[in-house]
Amino acid sequence: MIKRETIRSILQDGDTDRKTAVYGWVRTSRQGKNIAFAAINDGSCQENLQVVFDRKLFDNESLACLATGACIRVDGLVAGSPGGEQSRELHAQSLILVGNADENYPLQKKRHSLEFLRTIPHLRTRSNTFTAVFRTRHHLSMAIHRFFDEKGFYYVHPPLITSSDCEGAGQTFQVTKLDLENIKEKEDKINYSNDFFKRKAYLTVSAQLEAEPLALAMGGVYTFGPTFRADPSDTRIHSAEFWMIEPEMAFYDLDDDIVLIQEFLKYITTYVRDNCQDELAFFTKFIEPDLESRYEQILNRDFERVTYTEALNILENNRNRFEIKPEWGKDLAMEHERFLAKDEFNGPVFITDYPASFKPFYMR
Amino acid sequence: MIKRETIRSILQDGDTDRKTAVYGWVRTSRQGKNIAFAAINDGSCQENLQVVFDRKLFDNESLACLATGACIRVDGLVAGSPGGEQSRELHAQSLILVGNADENYPLQKKRHSLEFLRTIPHLRTRSNTFTAVFRTRHHLSMAIHRFFDEKGFYYVHPPLITSSDCEGAGQTFQVTKLDLENIKEKEDKINYSNDFFKRKAYLTVSAQLEAEPLALAMGGVYTFGPTFRADPSDTRIHSAEFWMIEPEMAFYDLDDDIVLIQEFLKYITTYVRDNCQDELAFFTKFIEPDLESRYEQILNRDFERVTYTEALNILENNRNRFEIKPEWGKDLAMEHERFLAKDEFNGPVFITDYPASFKPFYMR
Repeated sequence: MIKRETIRSILQDGDTDRKTAVYGWVRTSRQGKNIAFAAINDGSCQENLQVVFDRKLFDNESLACLATGACIRVDGLVAGSPGGEQSRELHAQSLILVGNADENYPLQKKRHSLEFLRTIPHLRTRSNTFTAVFRTRHHLSMAIHRFFDEKGFYYVHPPLITSSDCEGAGQTFQVTKLDLENIKEKEDKINYSNDFFKRKAYLTVSAQLEAEPLALAMGGVYTFGPTFRADPSDTRIHSAEFWMIEPEMAFYDLDDDIVLIQEFLKYITTYVRDNCQDELAFFTKFIEPDLESRYEQILNRDFERVTYTEALNILENNRNRFEIKPEWGKDLAMEHERFLAKDEFNGPVFITDYPASFKPFYMR
Repeated sequence: MIKRETIRSILQDGDTDRKTAVYGWVRTSRQGKNIAFAAINDGSCQENLQVVFDRKLFDNESLACLATGACIRVDGLVAGSPGGEQSRELHAQSLILVGNADENYPLQKKRHSLEFLRTIPHLRTRSNTFTAVFRTRHHLSMAIHRFFDEKGFYYVHPPLITSSDCEGAGQTFQVTKLDLENIKEKEDKINYSNDFFKRKAYLTVSAQLEAEPLALAMGGVYTFGPTFRADPSDTRIHSAEFWMIEPEMAFYDLDDDIVLIQEFLKYITTYVRDNCQDELAFFTKFIEPDLESRYEQILNRDFERVTYTEALNILENNRNRFEIKPEWGKDLAMEHERFLAKDEFNGPVFITDYPASFKPFYMR
């Protein structure tokens, strides 16, 4: 058997008139008089591959399996596709049905709502939205690692189970192996010497405590892993579990920090734009129309810098727009930050220094 | 001020007679009549940088700070170091003490036991052993991501908090936000509708359940993240928390799996050997003398392949060496696997097929 090739590889590679084999899931199919078509996708890229079946080679019975959702293997010849959406198509020579599907397959050719996709967790991964998100997330992750690796930072993996809190960054989940139903058969207080770690244990809210001594030995380190917050907050910007990046650097001052952050954001933005063109086009079309202009905000200029006092002056001049009134000496509220970045500067903005008498929350 | 450069960069870069600035921690220092020396390390590489202080430029008082453990900044000229262990040294022009240390600094110039290092968690990160391990772990992590990225696999991040078990892979930790001390004030059974997720939740023992539908949409995916096992087993091969790689592939047969595993192990081994030469030399000298021969076992040949029945025959012929006697139709015990890899084949070995009547444990 010929070795399997991904659809991405066929579409990117220029060579035609060569034999190859693909596996994929049928997105749509169409039966003509002399030929039949199937658009198949294997998740390797956003685009489908058009497969052409010559009716001289395939009878009606063998083509009947080409239902939306069916999984097939096709061996055939790569050919140019001057009329099609893609530059390449596949002229089928043999067809194997790997997994069949019928008209009850839930992902038919139409736009499905996220609410509907939520009801089919085993199949929603095959939707254009999910594969586009997961491919983009992959390239974003690669960009994060490449950036820090090229900068000489070291990737460290502090434990997630911890007995320490982190500056009250958030509420914690408790981790236990005690039998909760029988936790207090004999005693008034829980005896944690019977628990797995012989003490109370939590899921970490930050790797800072472990990353700092590593930075003070290795110069620059970063974490990129799961973090947990048990805050009962059902909003778009809170999640009980999320992946977080925490760089810690020895010998950096505030200006070094700012330069690093700006380089980082420009690097990962560029990397994703270069590696996820089809995905970004999909997001622009269906999810976030002004994606391109937001990319330009990050890529085409240095980020703005203001002092704390300058920022407060700007906010004071727009005082009536805020629920929480800005006040010199207090932390900025989220609506203040949003106003500065979105309305005032139309892009990322750094606060470059605080008055000596003022300690921002993370230094208190 | 001149921009800081890492010691790794100075030692790798060939240019001399140029001005630079380094930060680092003093490992040793030595006072001569006309010059003084300090070996400093900044964690960027295994090697120290020798800094030479001309007594015409520095008086006794300013050089008194060069105690083991002190953190300093030195500006100076990069010079060739024909007599030294390194090819480059730094001729100091200015010296700033960033953080002082005295004779009570715990990491003096001698070999410290891991048991001692365990007592100084805030400083053990500065030992040669810890920095070598963490740099190697970094490069190993980069190799893992590069391998899968080049293969067209997608990095996915399934949740760690889960309500599902995974084929009984191990015992689970429970995750809760209930107040355990007051868990049953009014009721006989715990009411999980009051817990954070409104049901019982656990830390995952495997991402398989989430990775499989992603592979069945995207072809090849992998996870690389923390995993938890609440098995009360204090051995060298068990850990309650560890990072695990789980690749899941659509359209792979057993032979494809074997090829992937072999390529993967050779790739990451080569990558670490290329990027961690000094670290591997350190490990060979102080921790694992036959490291090089184990590398050769992986790199210089195809891994062995035997069928299940062939493996059982080999084990039967060495029956008296095992506590658990090998028996056709049962899973291999760890001592059997160890015998095959270590004594029989002296390297990695694949079991390429199972008799049709036999289901290995993970298929039951």
